[in-house]
Amino acid sequence: MSQPSEFMKAAINEAERGIRRHDGGPFGACVVKGDRVIALAHNMVLKTGNPTQHAEVVAIGLAAKRLGSHILEGCDIYSTTEPCPMCFSAIHWARMREVHFGTSVPDVQRLGFNELTISNRTLKRLGKSPLVIHAGVARAACRQLLVDWKNLPDQQTY
Amino acid sequence: MSQPSEFMKAAINEAERGIRRHDGGPFGACVVKGDRVIALAHNMVLKTGNPTQHAEVVAIGLAAKRLGSHILEGCDIYSTTEPCPMCFSAIHWARMREVHFGTSVPDVQRLGFNELTISNRTLKRLGKSPLVIHAGVARAACRQLLVDWKNLPDQQTY
Repeated sequence: MSQPSEFMKAAINEAERGIRRHDGGPFGACVVKGDRVIALAHNMVLKTGNPTQHAEVVAIGLAAKRLGSHILEGCDIYSTTEPCPMCFSAIHWARMREVHFGTSVPDVQRLGFNELTISNRTLKRLGKSPLVIHAGVARAACRQLLVDWKNLPDQQTY
Repeated sequence: MSQPSEFMKAAINEAERGIRRHDGGPFGACVVKGDRVIALAHNMVLKTGNPTQHAEVVAIGLAAKRLGSHILEGCDIYSTTEPCPMCFSAIHWARMREVHFGTSVPDVQRLGFNELTISNRTLKRLGKSPLVIHAGVARAACRQLLVDWKNLPDQQTY
């Protein structure tokens, strides 16, 4: 494989597999490095019972395992739907290069996927989440953790 | 335990454990339901080699396993540092109730944690990520996945 359309097709096939198995939502992802597919995954939230197991998160975990590094530099990801903020940020933390996606938030909204109204294109709307935020709880002690970390002799990217 | 300060202390202890073990960044999280601690975790990115294994993501996974559900309704989370967008969104997907955190983005920035400049309070800045976004790739086929899902007889929250 070496074409974006082929990588996306692989992601789509994966999403279809997920739909058939009812493992989770209808979403697939494909991690690519150069012309090589590193990892393929579909949403596994229902199968695993873990709300973090979106296709992208699963694919990134598999890719990291395969490449032996939590840094996926030079890798691209193909997602069937615009990554949610969790996945978009996971992609960021993995230091990936490019994101390719199919359907966008307006597409999924029109189909009644209301939960996906938070996306990388509408991240600023996240403030409308019903979550209540409490800032500054035990701030000094928390800050100390950061200082302690900075004082370690051998720091790595985390 | 029944006080916010105690729950945060538990998160801090967990972060300290992580620092000692060098399992990942200096971050701890505690998931709580009522007056009960459901899960405790620290950043495990280095230990697991998986960039998604932030403290909150690990804690949510453990809590889901313990409660036997990917929906953590009625649960709160205590994080030693303001959750990054990945974690904040994971919290959202888990349908948790409240987020309590210690240090905020300006705190960690001042200490040189530049990677944390994306946060739930600065989500809109994510657009400055070096990631390249390609929208609409194989959009029709991707949209079909959503239609297929909607046509399944037994839909669940994913």
